Amino acid sequence: MWAGCMKINTLTIVGVGLIGGSIGLAAKQRGLAKRIIGTSRTQAGLDKARALGIVDEGLLDIEKAVPAAEIAIFCTPVDQIEKQVLQAGQSCSPGTVLTDTGSAKAQIVKGVQARMRNGVAFVGSHPLAGSEKQGPEHADADLFQGKWTIVTKTAVTDAEALAKVTAFWQALGSQVRVMDPKEHDRAVAWTSHLPHLAAAALTGILPPDLQELAASGFRDTTRIAAGDPALWTPIMMHNRSALLEALREFGRNCRRYRKVLQTRDWTGLEELLTQAKKVRDALGS
Amino acid sequence: MWAGCMKINTLTIVGVGLIGGSIGLAAKQRGLAKRIIGTSRTQAGLDKARALGIVDEGLLDIEKAVPAAEIAIFCTPVDQIEKQVLQAGQSCSPGTVLTDTGSAKAQIVKGVQARMRNGVAFVGSHPLAGSEKQGPEHADADLFQGKWTIVTKTAVTDAEALAKVTAFWQALGSQVRVMDPKEHDRAVAWTSHLPHLAAAALTGILPPDLQELAASGFRDTTRIAAGDPALWTPIMMHNRSALLEALREFGRNCRRYRKVLQTRDWTGLEELLTQAKKVRDALGS
Repeated sequence: MWAGCMKINTLTIVGVGLIGGSIGLAAKQRGLAKRIIGTSRTQAGLDKARALGIVDEGLLDIEKAVPAAEIAIFCTPVDQIEKQVLQAGQSCSPGTVLTDTGSAKAQIVKGVQARMRNGVAFVGSHPLAGSEKQGPEHADADLFQGKWTIVTKTAVTDAEALAKVTAFWQALGSQVRVMDPKEHDRAVAWTSHLPHLAAAALTGILPPDLQELAASGFRDTTRIAAGDPALWTPIMMHNRSALLEALREFGRNCRRYRKVLQTRDWTGLEELLTQAKKVRDALGS
Repeated sequence: MWAGCMKINTLTIVGVGLIGGSIGLAAKQRGLAKRIIGTSRTQAGLDKARALGIVDEGLLDIEKAVPAAEIAIFCTPVDQIEKQVLQAGQSCSPGTVLTDTGSAKAQIVKGVQARMRNGVAFVGSHPLAGSEKQGPEHADADLFQGKWTIVTKTAVTDAEALAKVTAFWQALGSQVRVMDPKEHDRAVAWTSHLPHLAAAALTGILPPDLQELAASGFRDTTRIAAGDPALWTPIMMHNRSALLEALREFGRNCRRYRKVLQTRDWTGLEELLTQAKKVRDALGS
């Protein structure tokens, strides 16, 4: 809607890690904000963000940084977002738009919507882009280019704020899909959280004497298992029930493979592999 | 041993697909053979291999191509290798060295050793390099550079042939590890065949409406599921028992994840993810 001509007076990025840092770089490169404020838990984090050109100004105090913004985006671990949004939101003027980048949405959106009172709008979002790497030194101005960002909408989501958050992501190069938070959580359980679990479960059982022989196939398949457990534990906590459902279905499919191997049903095995290849080919590289 | 100064009069490559084609390109680039003969099931395959500079000469008849060689390498699907080696081996002179690139070794090595009679040596090998892509058009002269190749040794393996096959792979840029065929099969069950099965099992259950939202994490984790089922079905057939053992252990580990999710044991979940990350970090990118 405003893509291409959106101009934010002050953008505040809460948490300038890989995702927050990439938002800062993308916003700068695209001239999206007149001023970018970043927050970090440490002065060293703020200094690094400034040195990397991610923010114009750094503040340790979220409750000062957020009310100064027209749009503030919370890029902190999913188990911190709800509390931080509610606290900082208390000091904001009506009309301020708050959003986030958490990988699980239902619990955060529900918690914030139930308790945010003063005309400050919160719209959940989640860019489907990232890396197993961490920290602003891996930030990338093109991280969101051509990728999907899911923006959540519920019965009480403010329409203007939704449009603004949508335009914000589009201005960063992303394609936007609007979804209900629960629908989002089901989607990422299958496309992200279950693959992470499977990659970690594969990696965890690799016999130590075979580590040296793990070639490109193993490395690709398990790359995401290098993700930070301090981020992934709360993501899986938040999305527990959808993830358990996806895990049950994965277990059922693994048992199909076990059965065709046990019974030497080679036609059945080739059918399973062929169906998977067809889906994987459709995704592209 | 002969690495750096090895020079083969005639090298025959049976099957000029991705692996056979890469061997041809690597051997040419490194001046390893005076002449390279390639075989294919079709004239079109031979023409393509010549056009790509993989071989000097193409022959449809394996039983003519192999006896002309000092070293012949079978790069055909694992369920064809034993039969092809035994048939072509009948027409070879004593001293000819035959090897292969099959991803499962015990059944092939046992079958060939039991029936090869005339002083022709067979040494199993398996380069731990490849791609989900297929065909000589994706061949790469550096595919084996810095990668491991496993060369198999049993109680009856000819020592000179083993040294020659080892030197051959080293000359192509590979590092060589000598292993018993069963030990090899156990190793690849964990590092390659189980990850392939898990990637295919993940891909196969992706709900169609979510395909569009599968981002880089899903794509990395499932990339190998695009491998050719006509190649992977016989690989899994050949390595059935070691793969079933690895699959059982994978199932046990998935159930550990299920349990910590079901019981909301977040400390337990973080421990599982942390142990996996530690292993994955040790592997490097």
